[in-house]
Amino acid sequence: MRQSRFFTKTRKEAPKDEVSNNASLLIRGGFIDKLQAGVYSYLPLGFRVLKKIENIIREELNKVGGQELLMPALQPKENWQKTGRWDSLDVLYKVTDLSGRENALGPTHEEIVVPLVGNFLNSYKDLPFSVYQFQTKFRMEARAKSGILRGREFVMKDMYSFHANEDDLKLFYQVVWDTYVKIFDRLGLGKLTYPTFASGGSFSKYSHEFQTVTPAGEDTIYICDDCKVAINKEIIEEQKVCPKCSGQKFREEKSIEVGNIFELKTKFSAPFGLTYKDESGNSKEVIMGCYGLGPSRVMGTIAEVFADKNGLVWPANVAPYRFHLIELDGSSNDDVRNEALKTYDAIRKDIGDEVLFDDRDLSAGAKFADSDLMGIPYRIVISKKTLDSKMLEVKDRKTGKIEMVSMEDLKKYYD
Amino acid sequence: MRQSRFFTKTRKEAPKDEVSNNASLLIRGGFIDKLQAGVYSYLPLGFRVLKKIENIIREELNKVGGQELLMPALQPKENWQKTGRWDSLDVLYKVTDLSGRENALGPTHEEIVVPLVGNFLNSYKDLPFSVYQFQTKFRMEARAKSGILRGREFVMKDMYSFHANEDDLKLFYQVVWDTYVKIFDRLGLGKLTYPTFASGGSFSKYSHEFQTVTPAGEDTIYICDDCKVAINKEIIEEQKVCPKCSGQKFREEKSIEVGNIFELKTKFSAPFGLTYKDESGNSKEVIMGCYGLGPSRVMGTIAEVFADKNGLVWPANVAPYRFHLIELDGSSNDDVRNEALKTYDAIRKDIGDEVLFDDRDLSAGAKFADSDLMGIPYRIVISKKTLDSKMLEVKDRKTGKIEMVSMEDLKKYYD
Repeated sequence: MRQSRFFTKTRKEAPKDEVSNNASLLIRGGFIDKLQAGVYSYLPLGFRVLKKIENIIREELNKVGGQELLMPALQPKENWQKTGRWDSLDVLYKVTDLSGRENALGPTHEEIVVPLVGNFLNSYKDLPFSVYQFQTKFRMEARAKSGILRGREFVMKDMYSFHANEDDLKLFYQVVWDTYVKIFDRLGLGKLTYPTFASGGSFSKYSHEFQTVTPAGEDTIYICDDCKVAINKEIIEEQKVCPKCSGQKFREEKSIEVGNIFELKTKFSAPFGLTYKDESGNSKEVIMGCYGLGPSRVMGTIAEVFADKNGLVWPANVAPYRFHLIELDGSSNDDVRNEALKTYDAIRKDIGDEVLFDDRDLSAGAKFADSDLMGIPYRIVISKKTLDSKMLEVKDRKTGKIEMVSMEDLKKYYD
Repeated sequence: MRQSRFFTKTRKEAPKDEVSNNASLLIRGGFIDKLQAGVYSYLPLGFRVLKKIENIIREELNKVGGQELLMPALQPKENWQKTGRWDSLDVLYKVTDLSGRENALGPTHEEIVVPLVGNFLNSYKDLPFSVYQFQTKFRMEARAKSGILRGREFVMKDMYSFHANEDDLKLFYQVVWDTYVKIFDRLGLGKLTYPTFASGGSFSKYSHEFQTVTPAGEDTIYICDDCKVAINKEIIEEQKVCPKCSGQKFREEKSIEVGNIFELKTKFSAPFGLTYKDESGNSKEVIMGCYGLGPSRVMGTIAEVFADKNGLVWPANVAPYRFHLIELDGSSNDDVRNEALKTYDAIRKDIGDEVLFDDRDLSAGAKFADSDLMGIPYRIVISKKTLDSKMLEVKDRKTGKIEMVSMEDLKKYYD
């Protein structure tokens, strides 16, 4: 993409009412736009990041047999009354249609997915399976001051699994746990993210959160550095020991909940009568798990944890582009422009649409400042100076290290 | 994908309250599920079709410089009051949040995109550009009896273009016209779809619809077979001549509006004060166009127009899978199972995840009936008989023609 053709620009300042660091940086960098508290647009740069995050999650969930679908946001009141959550869930947006029928705007999809799978599920032979979606959720959050970490409208990956018995659920629960570890590794958050023991509600001793450590977090966790797991506030108040090693040494940290996994067991299959026939023909309640992971929250978390004083710093796997190709004085120097175009085409031929070409008629200082703010991993500069040396100047956004490399050697940055 | 692992199944009958042919077939085939009138889930098969349709549209819009983004559904009342549509648009769902602030659930995004681009647009040098999204729209339709042809919640591709003057808008309008022709060709609807002259409202003589001819359509169009364009009911009542050749010979047909393009001019830039500075530094109103195309409606249209008495018939470009590999007696015959697995792996190696493998323990008749209902373009049968002949039996779903081909010759079906 040629940067001169982007309709967005970086901004000197975020809107005054934006108090979160993630949204401020993402707005200034041209990744998102704020429509109202907790409601943001994803601009072309931000949309690319969101899709890269989604694709990593999708690839890993497909590997463990997840079946992707898409369920609606407009959800009949009757479904929510069945579980009692029409009245008990305070984040529920409610909307009435022409005929006076009431709907919830889906904040989650247990009330929809359970009767949906009930249309197909008869026998133990149909089990187990899991389904997931990337879908826009609506939650009437009282406070929406954390940018895209806690939106009123946001993109969520929600997965639901269905099993004949608790042992089978436990097996799959562990598979998803391991998959989440892989996903957060690929997203660049692996080292900062801890599986965290949380309350399991009335159906299970524990549920688990995946918490990413950062001072910007709304949560507090207690890390057992021996086990590389954590417990949340509720658990530490109850038991004060690590559920894995029974150790009592914890490191307290602020954190963001980037994912969670629950053993739902029969919590939702019971009210909807979701049953199957076992080998003897007896009717049994289906055992369920659910697994959340929010791509937009992950994007905000990455913005928070990796940014430095100059702006955003994207891990290469989720960066909007891998390379930021910058020409200096290209509009007045044909040799520079031609070399820049040649490099642009060469990289695109090799690895596709992974290079943003700053062909704007601006000073080196302005272009470098924009590039730092946008946080693309590898900045390539082409100028009269680099032409003379017949080399490309490559700067690593994260380390700040600058290298002069040949076009051939640029390939070491390809993956 | 192995069919035995799908959580969905075909159904003998659609729900009794489903009166549309497209939704009945899609429900019976396991592509969609009905949550309530006008609100459907896209199951794994249907989700794949939807994504293929989206990708064709995306590829063509990217070619003409469209910049993809994602705008929110929760839209402040104030934006809609600015254009007067808070009160005038009867399909608007309205929802109130905790603090009593009212929002529309976006049925379209002019009220959002105009102030959004205003954050970045200053000079004539910033023009022209176009942005688009695939986004879930909400419209409180009084009647929702046409399945996924007219949903209360549905996926829409909406594109908006911004220009310095009307000539530039006209140029781009023609580019999108040509792009839509290409898109409908690739979607398999080319021969049945007519650019149709419609009312332009107060800002333009005409707008244009893309109408696909089918008896299931809610619209009526009048086709000029000389020009391969049509005019809609409103236009024929006004002028009774073809806007291209001035001919008066029309063929009346029922049709579905699968796309539309409008010259908005200053209809939305005026109320939001969207202006730019021209070469002389004078402030001028931005000239706009907008361009709709609904992937879910396209999916319903394809279902309507190509289905035969045995079920759905997908054009290869949008089919959930290109091949339906069916083993007969594979669970009792190891040779059949091994050959089926070998073929499954070979096709996947060549063209990726494009084969649905029916490994279920069912009769040939049941498998063939399901395959016809699901409408996958090429059915490959592996049985004791085909093993003996060392050939694969390939049936073309559309023509019904059956061929015996070698594994090598199967490649002619790859694209």
